[in-house]
Amino acid sequence: RAEMAKAVAQLIDNEVFRAFATYAAIVLLKMMLMSLITAYFRITRKAFVNPEDTASFGKGESAKKYLRTDPDVERARRGHLNDLENIVPFVGIGLLYALSGPELSTALLHFRIFAAARIFHTFAYLMPLPQPGRGLSWAVGYSVTFSMAYRVLKTAWLL
Amino acid sequence: RAEMAKAVAQLIDNEVFRAFATYAAIVLLKMMLMSLITAYFRITRKAFVNPEDTASFGKGESAKKYLRTDPDVERARRGHLNDLENIVPFVGIGLLYALSGPELSTALLHFRIFAAARIFHTFAYLMPLPQPGRGLSWAVGYSVTFSMAYRVLKTAWLL
Amino acid sequence: RAEMAKAVAQLIDNEVFRAFATYAAIVLLKMMLMSLITAYFRITRKAFVNPEDTASFGKGESAKKYLRTDPDVERARRGHLNDLENIVPFVGIGLLYALSGPELSTALLHFRIFAAARIFHTFAYLMPLPQPGRGLSWAVGYSVTFSMAYRVLKTAWLL
Repeated sequence: RAEMAKAVAQLIDNEVFRAFATYAAIVLLKMMLMSLITAYFRITRKAFVNPEDTASFGKGESAKKYLRTDPDVERARRGHLNDLENIVPFVGIGLLYALSGPELSTALLHFRIFAAARIFHTFAYLMPLPQPGRGLSWAVGYSVTFSMAYRVLKTAWLL
Repeated sequence: RAEMAKAVAQLIDNEVFRAFATYAAIVLLKMMLMSLITAYFRITRKAFVNPEDTASFGKGESAKKYLRTDPDVERARRGHLNDLENIVPFVGIGLLYALSGPELSTALLHFRIFAAARIFHTFAYLMPLPQPGRGLSWAVGYSVTFSMAYRVLKTAWLL
Repeated sequence: RAEMAKAVAQLIDNEVFRAFATYAAIVLLKMMLMSLITAYFRITRKAFVNPEDTASFGKGESAKKYLRTDPDVERARRGHLNDLENIVPFVGIGLLYALSGPELSTALLHFRIFAAARIFHTFAYLMPLPQPGRGLSWAVGYSVTFSMAYRVLKTAWLL
């Protein structure tokens, strides 16, 4: 049992793995924040999708008018979906990358650029900034994940 | 090679990791179940989105009328998306949390509350239960993931 | 520190884990490819959703007409969402499965069938192929993930 605990301890003591854990938690929390932003817009814009969510506004027609879409709500939802499409591959591929034994400085470079790009992407989407701001930040994050995947495949390749 | 196999065996023999593996598999299977529920509603309500899915109902207009949205189908799809938004961060952060060396009892408490909250959330969404049932179960799961992320960041912090 | 590095090296040297890393990276890259396919259809069909994305087409009404949905764009988006719903559970459960000590040949069988099924699913969705082509490839991938989850739960079970 002592040995088992040690094996786990070794993993979390590995500096590249610690860096990955830190950045993975940060970008996943950022993604979770989109739920709160969507909820904020739903409540302030009074734009809901489930009838049971508008019951507190009264019965019948008076509540029904709040079952509608709102541009700000939809924008936050698109930002959330874009996070799912990009942050989830980062976490999956990043974990394998962290276990592939990269240099700490190279790994940190990947993680830092990705996190910065995705945080900028959220601002660019929500404000919104004129293009190509959002497009470029998306492409930067995408490229970082691609670069990590390349190393994973080069190191682990077993088809 | 024997040593390598041992390192893997050590991980799966670690009790916190075993508990994580059990609950992660359970909530991911629960999320996958949403596909079957959506398919069930699509077939029983005859509400499809792809023209090739309605080809067996005949050709032309007779099949075209089944290309429509249905409230039950849309509700199941929203439940599925909500699972993606919440269960995926739980699995990612929970893995790092399990490797951060928490007490078994504390870890089990986190995993059990999260799984119970998300199973309740699905029932609350599909029946549907009046609010704040669904909202509260969402908030409980969200808080559990947040609590695990806090420990991951405190243990692993390397920016 | 040398020991820590070794523990990580042991994981990536494990053949089942290497096979998992290879296939997980492949299917995650395939999922990421859906972003490029959606972007391709958005640009060639001139069908956008964010006003700031059409600014380069001019101002006012001349740009506004490109804020519309297009069947090919929506089809690519549905394929992307289906990937999220199916590839993400594969990666999560597959990681735990790879750590549960399966035979290399059995593990490779699971990974290969899943990857082939999901690549076929994308072709079936985008062309589109007549049903039940897409439905069957979905069911094959789903069953593989289910089979891996069964082994994870049997090996790790700690509730």
